[in-house]
Amino acid sequence: MRPSNYRPVVAISMGDPAGIGPEIIVKALHRHKIRERVCPVVVGSVPILKQASALVGGMLPIEAVGKSLGEQWRTDQIRVLDPHRYEVVAVQPGVRDAFYGRMAIESVESALSLVLSGQAKALVTAPICKESAHLAGFNFPGLTEFLADRCGVRQAKLFLWSPLLKVIHATGHTSLRNALRELTVSNIIRTAELGREIWRKVYQREPQIAIAALNPHAGEGGAFGQEDERLVLPAVERMKAQGFKVDGPVPADTVFYKARKRMYDLVVALYHDQGHIPVKLLAFDRAVNVTAGLPIVRTAPDHGVAFDIAWQNKARDFSLVEAILLAARLAAAQNRTGR
Amino acid sequence: MRPSNYRPVVAISMGDPAGIGPEIIVKALHRHKIRERVCPVVVGSVPILKQASALVGGMLPIEAVGKSLGEQWRTDQIRVLDPHRYEVVAVQPGVRDAFYGRMAIESVESALSLVLSGQAKALVTAPICKESAHLAGFNFPGLTEFLADRCGVRQAKLFLWSPLLKVIHATGHTSLRNALRELTVSNIIRTAELGREIWRKVYQREPQIAIAALNPHAGEGGAFGQEDERLVLPAVERMKAQGFKVDGPVPADTVFYKARKRMYDLVVALYHDQGHIPVKLLAFDRAVNVTAGLPIVRTAPDHGVAFDIAWQNKARDFSLVEAILLAARLAAAQNRTGR
Repeated sequence: MRPSNYRPVVAISMGDPAGIGPEIIVKALHRHKIRERVCPVVVGSVPILKQASALVGGMLPIEAVGKSLGEQWRTDQIRVLDPHRYEVVAVQPGVRDAFYGRMAIESVESALSLVLSGQAKALVTAPICKESAHLAGFNFPGLTEFLADRCGVRQAKLFLWSPLLKVIHATGHTSLRNALRELTVSNIIRTAELGREIWRKVYQREPQIAIAALNPHAGEGGAFGQEDERLVLPAVERMKAQGFKVDGPVPADTVFYKARKRMYDLVVALYHDQGHIPVKLLAFDRAVNVTAGLPIVRTAPDHGVAFDIAWQNKARDFSLVEAILLAARLAAAQNRTGR
Repeated sequence: MRPSNYRPVVAISMGDPAGIGPEIIVKALHRHKIRERVCPVVVGSVPILKQASALVGGMLPIEAVGKSLGEQWRTDQIRVLDPHRYEVVAVQPGVRDAFYGRMAIESVESALSLVLSGQAKALVTAPICKESAHLAGFNFPGLTEFLADRCGVRQAKLFLWSPLLKVIHATGHTSLRNALRELTVSNIIRTAELGREIWRKVYQREPQIAIAALNPHAGEGGAFGQEDERLVLPAVERMKAQGFKVDGPVPADTVFYKARKRMYDLVVALYHDQGHIPVKLLAFDRAVNVTAGLPIVRTAPDHGVAFDIAWQNKARDFSLVEAILLAARLAAAQNRTGR
C-alpha cells in the first residue's frame, strides 16, 4: 500500500490539433484538483500547445520534457513530451487533414508507449477526427478498437462513467443490425465482469448490476422477441451462480431511471445507443469514456473534436477533467492492489 | 369557433380493477384543473369506483349515469357509466384474472363507443393488465393496436408526450429485430406527419422536427450500417420538399439532449426503446401516451397497472391527469377546427 498522496503519472494525448483537444487540455491542467492528484504529461506538439495556452490565457508555462520524463514533477508548469517535433505554422481550426490525423494518432501511440513501458500509469486521449485519421491511414472504427488492437486484446468494451449513471456496452461501434448478431450469453457475461472490475476498483465493494433488456418490455414473455429469454436470462443466471449481484433483463425504458434512483450501480447496455441516450441526456458534458478490457487504464472525454467551436476558447474541459481524475483513481487502485 | 370555456366530454375507461386504475381515476377527478376544463365520464363498475373512492378518501359522490349521459354536467360528483353492472364482491389487488381482464376490455369498448357516437369527444384509458386481458380472449399486443383495429386503421403510432420531450415512434410493440424490418421511408414520413398533426393541434404552429438515427453516430457515413442513408435521409429530403421543418438523421445519443434544449419540438424515434428511454428518464410519472393516426382522440397514462402498489392509496395520478388534460386540449382543437 502506497501513501494516499500517490499522484500517478497520466499521459494525455493531444488529439486532433484542429479540434478542441489542445485548448481543453491546457484548461484542464490549470485546475487545482488535477494538479493536486495527478502528474500529467501531455503527448503532442509543443508549439500547438503554446498556441492553445495563448488562446485560453494560460498562466502555466508549457515545458518540453525528454523521453525519460524525469523524476521531479513540478506543479507550476505543463509538461509536454513532443517526440516528433512537427513543423507547425498555424493550426487551421476545423480542417480535416491527413497531417493533423497523423499527429493525432502518433500522439496516441507515443502516449500509449509511455503507459506500456510503465513510465505513465494511465492514458487519457483527447478527441481525434476520424476522417483526418483515416486520411492518414488509420483503419479502425475508433480509438477504443485501435488501442485494443495495439494491446493485443480481442475486444474492449465502452464504459460510460457519469455521476448518475454508469453504463458498460456489450456491443459498440457497429450497426444495430450487427449488434444483434454480436450479442451472446458469454459476451453479456464478459461485459458485466469487465464493468464490475472497474466499478470495484473505484468503490471497493460489490456493485448491484442490471442487464438492460433488448426488446420492448423485455420481450413481454416472448411476444416481442426471444433474445431476452434466450440470451439475457441465462447470462443473469450464470452470473448469479458466480456471486454477482445482478438483475435482468430489466426493460430498457425503466432500467436507467432505476439506476438513477440508486437501485442499480451499474447497467450493462446491449447496444451503443441504448446506453448513450440516457448518459448523454443526464450528463452531456460530464461523462467519461473508460475502455474496459485493456491491460492498461484508459479514459477519454465523451465528446468529439467539436470543430464548430474549436480554437475559439469556448470549449468546456469538464469531461476531460473527469476523464483525467477517473484515470488517476483507477491508476491509484491498480497501484494499491498491484494489478 | 366555440367559446374558450369549452369543456369537452372525456370518456375514461376504468382499466383493470386489480390495478391502480380505479384509485388514480378517483384522485384525478377530484383535481380542480380537471373539473375546470373537462366533463369527465368514467366507464366502468360503480361499486369498484366506490371502493376506490373510499380508499383514497374521495369527497365527491360516485354517481351512475344512463347511456345518454344527460346534458347537465355537475362538477360536484364523479359520473360513471356502468353498462355491464358486473357483480363485484371485493377486488383482489394484483390478481391476474379473466373476469378482471374482461371488465378492463369491456370498459374500453364502451368508452370507445361513446366517442365514436360523438357523445364523448376523447378517450382516456386507464391501464389494463395484458395477461388478464389475454385470459379473457383479448388478442392484441396492447390497447393501441386494439383501438387501431376497432377504428379500422392499419397502423397507429405511439406518441409519448411530456413537458420536456415529445417523441413519436415509427415502430412499436414488436421485437427490435422486427422493428428493423418495419422501417421504411414511407413509414418514417407517415410517422412524422402524424406527430406534426398532433403537435400543431396543441401549439398551432409548425414544429421543428428531428428524425433520430438508427445506427450509432447516424451510421458514421455508412461504416456502422446503411439505414440512415438509405431510409432516414430520403425521408427527410421528401419531407423538406413538402414544407416540413425537419432535420435528420440526428444521432440518437444527442437528439434527445438537443430536443430538451428546445432545438427540436418533436422527435421521431425509430423504435420503442429509443424514444421510451429518454422520456421515461426525464418524465417518469408525467408522460402521456397519445395514439396518433386514429380517427378519434385517445390518450393514456404512460405506465402500467402497478400491481405491486395497487389498492394501497400509494399510486400517483400525475400521468393520468396529464393524459386527461391533453385529451381535452386535443378535443378542443378538433372542436375549433372542425376536424
